[in-house]
Amino acid sequence: MLNFVFHNPVKIVFGKGTISQVGELAPTKGRIMMTYGGGSIKRNGVYDQVKEALKGRDVVEFEGIEANPLYETCMKAVKLCQKEKVDFILAVGGGSVIDGSKFIAAAVPYQGKDTWDILRAGAGDEGAEVKSAIPLGTVLTLPATGTEMNANSVVSRKSTMEKRYFSSPFVYPQFSILDPETTFTLPEKQTANGIVDAFVHVVEQYLTVDVNSPLQDRQAEAVFLTLIEEAPKALANPRDYDARANIMWSATCALNGLIGCGVQQDWATHMIGHELTAVYGLDHAQTLAVVLPPLLRRQKKAKLDKLVKMGERIFGICAADKDAAAEKTIVAIEAFFNSVGVPTTLSAYNIKSSEAAAVVYRRLKSLNSVFGEHADITPEAVRDILSA
Amino acid sequence: MLNFVFHNPVKIVFGKGTISQVGELAPTKGRIMMTYGGGSIKRNGVYDQVKEALKGRDVVEFEGIEANPLYETCMKAVKLCQKEKVDFILAVGGGSVIDGSKFIAAAVPYQGKDTWDILRAGAGDEGAEVKSAIPLGTVLTLPATGTEMNANSVVSRKSTMEKRYFSSPFVYPQFSILDPETTFTLPEKQTANGIVDAFVHVVEQYLTVDVNSPLQDRQAEAVFLTLIEEAPKALANPRDYDARANIMWSATCALNGLIGCGVQQDWATHMIGHELTAVYGLDHAQTLAVVLPPLLRRQKKAKLDKLVKMGERIFGICAADKDAAAEKTIVAIEAFFNSVGVPTTLSAYNIKSSEAAAVVYRRLKSLNSVFGEHADITPEAVRDILSA
Repeated sequence: MLNFVFHNPVKIVFGKGTISQVGELAPTKGRIMMTYGGGSIKRNGVYDQVKEALKGRDVVEFEGIEANPLYETCMKAVKLCQKEKVDFILAVGGGSVIDGSKFIAAAVPYQGKDTWDILRAGAGDEGAEVKSAIPLGTVLTLPATGTEMNANSVVSRKSTMEKRYFSSPFVYPQFSILDPETTFTLPEKQTANGIVDAFVHVVEQYLTVDVNSPLQDRQAEAVFLTLIEEAPKALANPRDYDARANIMWSATCALNGLIGCGVQQDWATHMIGHELTAVYGLDHAQTLAVVLPPLLRRQKKAKLDKLVKMGERIFGICAADKDAAAEKTIVAIEAFFNSVGVPTTLSAYNIKSSEAAAVVYRRLKSLNSVFGEHADITPEAVRDILSA
Repeated sequence: MLNFVFHNPVKIVFGKGTISQVGELAPTKGRIMMTYGGGSIKRNGVYDQVKEALKGRDVVEFEGIEANPLYETCMKAVKLCQKEKVDFILAVGGGSVIDGSKFIAAAVPYQGKDTWDILRAGAGDEGAEVKSAIPLGTVLTLPATGTEMNANSVVSRKSTMEKRYFSSPFVYPQFSILDPETTFTLPEKQTANGIVDAFVHVVEQYLTVDVNSPLQDRQAEAVFLTLIEEAPKALANPRDYDARANIMWSATCALNGLIGCGVQQDWATHMIGHELTAVYGLDHAQTLAVVLPPLLRRQKKAKLDKLVKMGERIFGICAADKDAAAEKTIVAIEAFFNSVGVPTTLSAYNIKSSEAAAVVYRRLKSLNSVFGEHADITPEAVRDILSA
């Protein structure tokens, strides 16, 4: 096992009827900015529940944080925050609303010349250091990214077609409310995307090098197995509370730092996927389902032991040799993504893979980006992966 | 799944050579009281490492917190803390030193009439509310109790032969340093005790009622399986770093709140075990190994589904019917405890079970104590369990 630091101060309030607690969890003094997306929370009753719980409080609203939240949109919220002297941000929605709100929280007090500098990470750059942030809390309505219990945020810039991230302990939510009933009315596509996103978060931390970390391996496998078991239940019966709850908590545990303790991590699939979203506007999970299988095939040797272990423990695979077992594991992962309705080829989106490979190659080459746990996913490797 | 709140702000710093970081983790201003036990940290070099890291700092020491830390001893430390105006407590040792230090931290600012009131919990009483505590940090040297990453503390009172606990968010350690190398020189008995203690912590949260919580079940099973796999390695080769590290992190994850999220919990084995320690002075883990098997046999019906699941997933048991599978699971648990050298009968300690049953019955009857996830472990049930 590798040395590690684990520190996650987010308070999770999980279960039926918990949104009413937002009034006690949010600070009683000062001005709250409530951020949300395109209005689905107004249709499913979450907006009303939150407003009811915050009755009598000083609340300003910022509506319209889109999927793959835009820097341009967030900067409008930053201006509103500064003008209205906001003391606390309450993000109500899915990963995009929360990620956007984390960036807003960090951008408001940011003293640097160019606020975009916060987001330079992931572009072969460390990004500017975040030294403070407005405190925030969240009400999660879409299990997927794990942002409700971590210090990460991913934001896109329309003007330059870039998708970047930052991490800072200052943007850990003070609390996150997870009520599985809020997910009953999710469109099937979003449910499926969320499952694939959470699954690939586990892959990024598990399918690397075996460093003799049996506990973390099994904690990761716990998330894989739960997602695989519960996905068809939630898709067949969207109001199955337990299936929704089990998926919601799995998505949080997929990226709250725990399964990544003391192990090597990859994240190449995410980095390549971000490029596909930036260029083609694909959903985040769609890009992951497209990139992961060819990436695993290319890295089969480097990831062999873990692919075999995953095949055995997750999919019950046994094969004549390790190479065959690894290939069967990759096929099983593809089959799982397809089974929930998320395709594994670019052609499903009418994108020519050779073209995508060329475009993404040029973008990454100009940045000298190198990804992966062995730092061997060069721009050339990415071209191969996307051409496959 | 049941509703739950999860909030664990402890910063874990894990791995080789991490004790040197205590200087950065502890506050730079104010007086630190370093608490420790009987001197083993002086023999294994941990004392020197901590002192070196705290060079130039204002440190007072309190030595002599014993196994099953005594209220009487802790109150001496409370007086010293008050006299020396201590600002921060650094507990260096195993679960007893840390539990004792948590109580000291809460007792110093306690305003109530009788400080013992803090510890009335577990005696059919809630205990006095802890409203503040001196901040503390820990350097763990014995993986077992999980106290390094939770808000619990168990303390015994010599004068009245009571063993009681309290929980308060104010006594979450600010940080805990876990260097597996500190455990290389543990006596075999302490290694084995720690493994049994961690194992039974998982049992208390897992072997109850199935509430459809597949993720938490598998996170619990991850700890079981790791302990079972790594125990013989650490016992055969005490300097096996990975085995020590895997056991250490497993013991922490066994009782940091995670596997208990949204599930029913038991804790009857612990409550009965505390009585055996209070009366006969048995090690905590020794009492658990003695109490658990007969308790499981008595509760076999109420715990049937989970016993069968545990048998299947942990011990590879299949049987003609559920009752037979459950019995095989209990036998396998007994065999595991015996395999690490912790006996499962009172006779191994020359204690007559009928006598112990009578003594503990009288003590619990006078308090009207009732334990277990179904609140059906009455004093009479405890008498049956201990007589078995």
